[in-house]
Amino acid sequence: VAVDVPALVAALDGGDRRALARLLTVVEDGATEDRRAVVAALHPRAGRARVVGITGAPGVGKSTLTAALAGALRARERRVAVLAVDPSSPRTGGALLGDRIRMQDHHDDDGVFVRSMAARGHLGGLAAAAPLAVLVLDAAGFDDVLVETVGVGQSEIEVVAAADTTVLVLAPGMGDAVQAAKAGILEVPDVFVINKADHGGAGRLASELTSMLDLGEHGEERPSVVRCVAVRGEGVDEVLAAIDARASARGSAARRGAARARAAVLGIASEVVRRGLVGLPDPDGRGTALDALAERVDERGIDPFAAADLLLERWRRDA
Amino acid sequence: VAVDVPALVAALDGGDRRALARLLTVVEDGATEDRRAVVAALHPRAGRARVVGITGAPGVGKSTLTAALAGALRARERRVAVLAVDPSSPRTGGALLGDRIRMQDHHDDDGVFVRSMAARGHLGGLAAAAPLAVLVLDAAGFDDVLVETVGVGQSEIEVVAAADTTVLVLAPGMGDAVQAAKAGILEVPDVFVINKADHGGAGRLASELTSMLDLGEHGEERPSVVRCVAVRGEGVDEVLAAIDARASARGSAARRGAARARAAVLGIASEVVRRGLVGLPDPDGRGTALDALAERVDERGIDPFAAADLLLERWRRDA
Repeated sequence: VAVDVPALVAALDGGDRRALARLLTVVEDGATEDRRAVVAALHPRAGRARVVGITGAPGVGKSTLTAALAGALRARERRVAVLAVDPSSPRTGGALLGDRIRMQDHHDDDGVFVRSMAARGHLGGLAAAAPLAVLVLDAAGFDDVLVETVGVGQSEIEVVAAADTTVLVLAPGMGDAVQAAKAGILEVPDVFVINKADHGGAGRLASELTSMLDLGEHGEERPSVVRCVAVRGEGVDEVLAAIDARASARGSAARRGAARARAAVLGIASEVVRRGLVGLPDPDGRGTALDALAERVDERGIDPFAAADLLLERWRRDA
Repeated sequence: VAVDVPALVAALDGGDRRALARLLTVVEDGATEDRRAVVAALHPRAGRARVVGITGAPGVGKSTLTAALAGALRARERRVAVLAVDPSSPRTGGALLGDRIRMQDHHDDDGVFVRSMAARGHLGGLAAAAPLAVLVLDAAGFDDVLVETVGVGQSEIEVVAAADTTVLVLAPGMGDAVQAAKAGILEVPDVFVINKADHGGAGRLASELTSMLDLGEHGEERPSVVRCVAVRGEGVDEVLAAIDARASARGSAARRGAARARAAVLGIASEVVRRGLVGLPDPDGRGTALDALAERVDERGIDPFAAADLLLERWRRDA
């Protein structure tokens, strides 16, 4: 079925939720031509939203905090979209998160929109799909886009690093500050949140974190450390204040905007190439060129680098 | 400094550890020409090693189990290499793991080699670097290559999925089986290990897992569930037996070999393109083409998809 992009964009402007969901599906998994058309139509309308990346290990209460932040932003009459990048199926994390936000009395509130995106199943990966989903949500007029993802994994780190402001959620008993460092994102976050601050060990975690930050050189950009109990809504306004403070920090918005654009362009280009390479037919008619080459590599008939060179050469000639 | 690939390969054959380390550095971060030469020289010598992927959330005792498995394999006089894919710096995970293995009386044992690879800092990412590091270790004559990585993240899942046998490590109290599913790799593992089986909740975790597996359809390929206490070496031989059983399962080795070759070729090709795209100079002489395009995207002068198309077109013309 062909996608009627102009009709979807017009419906989006009218606040049509189904059009929004459809456009997200197109940029995540659609044909290259359709994605190209959607991005061309929506990019001029985007650029207003604030993008907040929220990350942390499983079990720290990331989704609960995201839901609480969405609620606090709604209380300020901001329109909020949540993009939950879930390494498992779209059914689990995102649906749970949607339920949590609805529990906070935002049922039928069209100022909140939750979208779950599976990390698997995207041909070219998150690096292309996530920035385009953010673009669609931005163009749909949301003031804040909260991108929630687990804090480990190279692709996931890249996605969060492209946000305007990044939040790393920690919790006592879920590993110490050293493990937070191992989560891979310690250099990136603007705000550290110690969630479950009513649990034992929160004070120790906070002081470990502070010592760690004292060792680094941050200048004006030193990350904030905020404690909260997201499940009871305690400290959530303080988390939001810390995010606001960083978002308005001199110069950072422009710098992040260009970095985000760079990541999006590179992600899209890489995905276009990857789709092209995967789909390239074998000249001898045995399925795809990639599968035929992989078989020869496995049989030691050619080495993988030479096979990659051949594959690229063929793609370049065909494209 | 130019890399003398033939000399390094000759030294590798002589069992020179420094040559091995150097070759790993070349395939991970070297110039494209050097990587190409190393792969061409080593691929014909590789293909004998068994590759075991070991994954799990932070805190489940993944590194401890990996060290214990390495010890058990050494006791069988197998030569073992460990590739620790660490999302943080090369200093933490890998060094710790090395210490643990050495503590098990393998100090100065040249049948064990530990290499840590940071998930960040590779231009084209893990998808290219990890398979090439495995290739080098395979060509160096190790019987088993244990690839240890945190169980979340799209790139990390791809790396582990390319192993001959995959092990997912869980622990009681670190989240239930549903969280294991959220770790994103539940469809992949051949062996589930419940580590810290002496802790309360191990029985419940095992039965949750079994119920979950009962719901799926696996045929002959049903994953094993094994309990152990890696820190005391209990159950480690059973884990190894489960790995051995899966590795010898009919047909699986050939299938995995081709899949691994496919992942390696695609990873290398994607990285070659990515390096090319990142390094492409701007025709107007203002740094790189990518940065110039990103700036125009950020200023809304061009949309990111059109920018990606332009970048690819220029790269194709130049290459």
